[in-house]
Formats: sequence, C-alpha cells, structure tokens
Amino acid sequence: MFTQSAKSFPIPSIQRLPVYLRFLKEQRNRGNILISCTQIAEEFGQLSVQVRKDLAITGIAGRPKIGYRTNELIDAIENFLGWNRKIKAFLIGAGSLGSAILGYEGFVEHGLHIVAAFDVDPEKIGRAIHQCPVFDFQKMLEMGQNAGIEIGILTVPSAAAQEAANILVQIGVQGIWNYTPIRLDIPQEIVCEEVKLSASFAVLSSRLKKNAIFSDEYV
Amino acid sequence: MFTQSAKSFPIPSIQRLPVYLRFLKEQRNRGNILISCTQIAEEFGQLSVQVRKDLAITGIAGRPKIGYRTNELIDAIENFLGWNRKIKAFLIGAGSLGSAILGYEGFVEHGLHIVAAFDVDPEKIGRAIHQCPVFDFQKMLEMGQNAGIEIGILTVPSAAAQEAANILVQIGVQGIWNYTPIRLDIPQEIVCEEVKLSASFAVLSSRLKKNAIFSDEYV
Repeated sequence: MFTQSAKSFPIPSIQRLPVYLRFLKEQRNRGNILISCTQIAEEFGQLSVQVRKDLAITGIAGRPKIGYRTNELIDAIENFLGWNRKIKAFLIGAGSLGSAILGYEGFVEHGLHIVAAFDVDPEKIGRAIHQCPVFDFQKMLEMGQNAGIEIGILTVPSAAAQEAANILVQIGVQGIWNYTPIRLDIPQEIVCEEVKLSASFAVLSSRLKKNAIFSDEYV
Repeated sequence: MFTQSAKSFPIPSIQRLPVYLRFLKEQRNRGNILISCTQIAEEFGQLSVQVRKDLAITGIAGRPKIGYRTNELIDAIENFLGWNRKIKAFLIGAGSLGSAILGYEGFVEHGLHIVAAFDVDPEKIGRAIHQCPVFDFQKMLEMGQNAGIEIGILTVPSAAAQEAANILVQIGVQGIWNYTPIRLDIPQEIVCEEVKLSASFAVLSSRLKKNAIFSDEYV
C-alpha cells in the first residue's frame, strides 16, 4: 500500500524567498530578463547551490548556463508564497504594534488585506488607522461569520491573546500571526506563526562582547 | 601551531532560551528549586535531548536523575544572553513600531535600557514615549559620543536606514537591531540582527491551503 509522501519545505528556505523576490523585482525593473543563481548568490553572499535549492521549493528549475527568466521566477515565488492573491485578515489589538503593521505597505504588496482591526479601547473604536477601520472587539465574532477571513493577526496584550485566538478559531481562520509571547492553545490544523522579538533580542545580546562563532545550524 | 577554536553557538538554540527562561521563572515562583530537561521538554513539546543541548550552550550541566537547580539555570541563561546587566541603546525612528518597542516591558526585564529615541518629526521631538525622551535625529551623533551606547535599534523608514546606521557606527555601537527590510552596509565586527517580518509572513502565507510538511531543517 502506498501513501503519497507530502512535499517537505524547509522553513529557512521560505524565509529567504522574500529577499530574493525583492531583488528579482529590482532586476526586472532594470530590464534584466534573465537571472542566474550565481547572480542572486553574489548579491546575498550565499552559496549558489543554496540559492538553487531555495528556489526549487517553488517548483521552478533553472536551465544550465542560462538561468531563470526573471518574470517566471517572480511568478513562481509569488505563487508559492500565496502573494499573488488577496489574503483577507483581521487584526486584533490596535495599539502601537498593530498600527505599525497596518502602516507597513510591504504587506499589501504581499497580498495581505487587513479588512478590519479590533480593540477594546473606546478611544480607538470608530477611528481608522492607516485607512483600516477599528471596531469594537465584541463585534469580531459576528463580523467574522462567512467573511472569508483567512488570517488573524494578534497584537493584543498577552493577557488577551488566548481569548482573541478562541474567537479567531470560531470565525474559521486558517492561520494566526501571533505577535504576543503567549503559546496559543488552538486546533492543530490552524497554522500558527509566531513573531518572537525576545528570541531576536537574545541572538543580538548574546553576540555582544563574545568571541564566538554563531551558526545557523540546528543541533 | 595551534589556534584556539572559538565556541560555536547554534542560533536556533539561542532563540529557544527566552521561552525556557520564562518557564523557569514561573517554576521558581512556584517554589520548584529543581527542574529536569524532561519537564522543560514536556512543557514545550520538544525532545529532552534537544533541551539538554540548548541549555549546554550556556555552560551549565545538569546532574543525571536530579536535573538543574532552577536558580542556577536561570542565572546561567541570563548570563549567557547578557540579560543580567544593563544594555544601553538608542532607538531611531519613533513611529508606531518604535513606540511599540519602547512600550514592551519584556525588553526592560532583559536588560535593554533605551536611553533615548530619535526622530526627524518636529511633533515627536521633545515628547516622551513610554517615559523615553525623543530627540532631534540631528543630535544623535553628538549625544552618542562616549555615552556607552551598545545597541542601536532601527525603526526608521527604509530610505533612512543606511544614514542612521552610519551614525550608529560612528557612535561606536557593537550591535544594530534592524527592523527595516534594508541590508545595511556596516563593518563586519558590528553584530547585526534583522527582524524580518516579511520572512515570517512568508512562512505563514505559504502554509495556508497546503498539504505539506514544513521542517525546521536547513538544506
């Protein structure tokens, strides 16, 4: 009996795709219709073989001595990342972090369409932040019914994280982008991506004043 | 002839230390003076051997069948991360992202002491955001001389990133925490930690609607 093996996508490769994409769009703007792994590798100080493997997860293959058509490569990456379509999202927590996300134009380019923000603060409710309307958190469950919301972005204080996540689950989101330090208790089929600023600070602070080699390798 | 080999610290292990630390402090508050890798592993759904390897980078070794003294383990992690001392920082760009960082109390616990913020906006200059005074960006170079600033936090728009980084280099910072999507041109001896929100979004969006295995492994 056969079970079809699911494809495996290494997360570090996925994380590198956005920077390649940015570079490729620059190259396209300059009229470069062909691009090689070597050129990309040189730009980012990486091994050419690594770039080739990263790009291969999108399903595209370059031609030896020629490389990729820039346009096709851009399409392949955007298609793989799901950035060539609109992804509807709710943002919960319209504080300064939430505002920063609402104001970051890069995400719009990536297809992220934050249709509504929610907060409990009466001073924020009814306002718009970077053109996104802020509603009462109490209305989120009702507004989210059959609204096709795929992603919930959690920028609430830690104490409110699980409650907000529970409502996102009820709404039927497929993914939660969690900016809180809380480990959420949500069904396994919902994708949860955590932004861990403390982890990032740990890498920075531990490297100060140390004469050591830091590696990307997992042990 | 011998060259002393520098220690190697895997970054994914470092990234996991803050969550262990948070858990260990909870355990200490509950009066648990001893803790084992197995307990930590169970809490985070990880392999016990992985937890042991992660903790070993701090230089601490648990005792078989006994584990670690919670206090000693907390000290070892904080010492390794440099979180048991004050790390003075400048923040450049007092917009919503900068404000979010200034308002995040967790960083203060980690020793991060943002002594001043800088901006070019006259409406922000002279104000204080979460008790941190905002100064004219033009004064940063002067104020940073011999001020013992170890870290610069970059939360400026992309177009201003390199200019701000250049001044941080002149001030003599050892590390830059870069929240912009720009790859900075800075001397190699300065540690640069990039917060790549687009990379995080890429991992999230690419996993939606995909029947695939995503691995932490590098290829």
